[in-house]
Amino acid sequence: MPYPESVTLIEVGPRDGFQFEKQNIPTSMKIDIINRLIRAGLTQIQVTSFVHPDRVPQMADAELIIAGLDVPSGVSIDALVLNMKGVERACKTGLKRVEVSLSASDTHSRKNTGMTFDDAFAHGVEMIAHAKKIGLAVRAGVQCAFGCAYEGKVGMDRVRRMVETYLTAGADEISLADTTGMAVPMDMQRIPPQVLSITGKTPFTLHLHNTRGLGLVNTMAALDTGVSRFDTAMGGMGGCPFVPNAAGNISTEDTAYLMQTMGIQTGININAVAGCSRMLESFLGKHFDGKLHRLI
Amino acid sequence: MPYPESVTLIEVGPRDGFQFEKQNIPTSMKIDIINRLIRAGLTQIQVTSFVHPDRVPQMADAELIIAGLDVPSGVSIDALVLNMKGVERACKTGLKRVEVSLSASDTHSRKNTGMTFDDAFAHGVEMIAHAKKIGLAVRAGVQCAFGCAYEGKVGMDRVRRMVETYLTAGADEISLADTTGMAVPMDMQRIPPQVLSITGKTPFTLHLHNTRGLGLVNTMAALDTGVSRFDTAMGGMGGCPFVPNAAGNISTEDTAYLMQTMGIQTGININAVAGCSRMLESFLGKHFDGKLHRLI
Repeated sequence: MPYPESVTLIEVGPRDGFQFEKQNIPTSMKIDIINRLIRAGLTQIQVTSFVHPDRVPQMADAELIIAGLDVPSGVSIDALVLNMKGVERACKTGLKRVEVSLSASDTHSRKNTGMTFDDAFAHGVEMIAHAKKIGLAVRAGVQCAFGCAYEGKVGMDRVRRMVETYLTAGADEISLADTTGMAVPMDMQRIPPQVLSITGKTPFTLHLHNTRGLGLVNTMAALDTGVSRFDTAMGGMGGCPFVPNAAGNISTEDTAYLMQTMGIQTGININAVAGCSRMLESFLGKHFDGKLHRLI
Repeated sequence: MPYPESVTLIEVGPRDGFQFEKQNIPTSMKIDIINRLIRAGLTQIQVTSFVHPDRVPQMADAELIIAGLDVPSGVSIDALVLNMKGVERACKTGLKRVEVSLSASDTHSRKNTGMTFDDAFAHGVEMIAHAKKIGLAVRAGVQCAFGCAYEGKVGMDRVRRMVETYLTAGADEISLADTTGMAVPMDMQRIPPQVLSITGKTPFTLHLHNTRGLGLVNTMAALDTGVSRFDTAMGGMGGCPFVPNAAGNISTEDTAYLMQTMGIQTGININAVAGCSRMLESFLGKHFDGKLHRLI
């Protein structure tokens, strides 16, 4: 299959990356960075998460962040929601789009939500239905789609059933997440094509982590099977809840550079994103896992 | 082209990695690690460099290291040599194999050796001839084969001419190095096949760095064109002289794991190599760029 002329990189650093930092990032700095990312050409950005502030204090400023952003037409921002209250909070900010994401693994689901897979999934589908009813677009995600740190490989039947249910519930985008970085290139030949065969015209996005160093290898393998949308995080921020100091999401800059070397457009100003990564590294006094932002 | 049943990983951490550490690694620890790497299944290891101790003090213990190793039959160790004196020193230790490596870039050559490319190359070819004459096998390398931090892309004509001259001089192995991590996947479709077409039965090895995050992506792209030998460094040790804190060589463990996921044998006990990487990280108080060694 020939490579696409362009791919879409969805920036998830402000959610998946910022929530991982123990040190408080000031709200004003978060807003400044997201506004810079918009100006750098990112057209879809997950900017925060509506989650109980006691559980994830890093995301307690969700409403303030959305209020502070300059979002031009053509740019879509969304936020992760974890329960009905989150859907309501998101809607009140004027946000047009949320993500609902459920784990394909029983054990991961129980540890993360306190519910069995069946209960968590049923609740998630209700959230999607409610979000759609109150006028929100929904991106629906499958966590641990490529394996689970507790259970190993996850059945393709379950992944397919989740995606079908999401589509029936009206999801506007489907994402498959390699939550703990267990995907390998051969999985890419097997799993995304099966999902692409049922998503049709609904956008399909891969969310890859670099936990085992295979983030960009998997990206290349997925490109080969027709995937053209990838979640990435500025500087490769983020981590893995099971591995201290683990690598995070694939880096926005490194992924955009890889695409550029193959003549694939992303519309992203790599230097401008790299500036954001360096600014935040300097503030946090650490190095993210991405490479290119420190070279340019 | 189908993937090979097995690939050979050549461990270069004890040379390319150890020389990069500012902190002194005791000779006894170096010897212990190399002996462990041998027991972990690495069959070709570059163990040190014969270079003037004033220039690279980390390699001043070259003779002591070689004297301390337990090298069973079937395992080949070699050392990098930078001048005739190095060839002589290596030979005196009883070593059977050396590497001579020259830069394809004029500017890099001048900065690294103080000689023009023509002079440095002529001297290198004399070193190869002398090493062969005194009974040593020679691995002959092209540095900056995929580009140079000073000059950008390097001409394929020069790379091919260097390889042809090496083969005529009796080189027993050819290696192409992406010294500063500038290679991209499309280079792999272009450069290794041209070199493979002239090396014939002489083993051909790629030496890839992860400076821009593309180390394993390039490895996959090279596999696709028939390359089956790769230099790797335990834990992804090493760096880039032009970039502070840059990633180093592709990691032995991560590369072996990637191969394993595709059913390609390396003969390497990944856990045992990872143990060496963790031991050295703990001693140095730092994290190398590789991923897998901290997960297992």
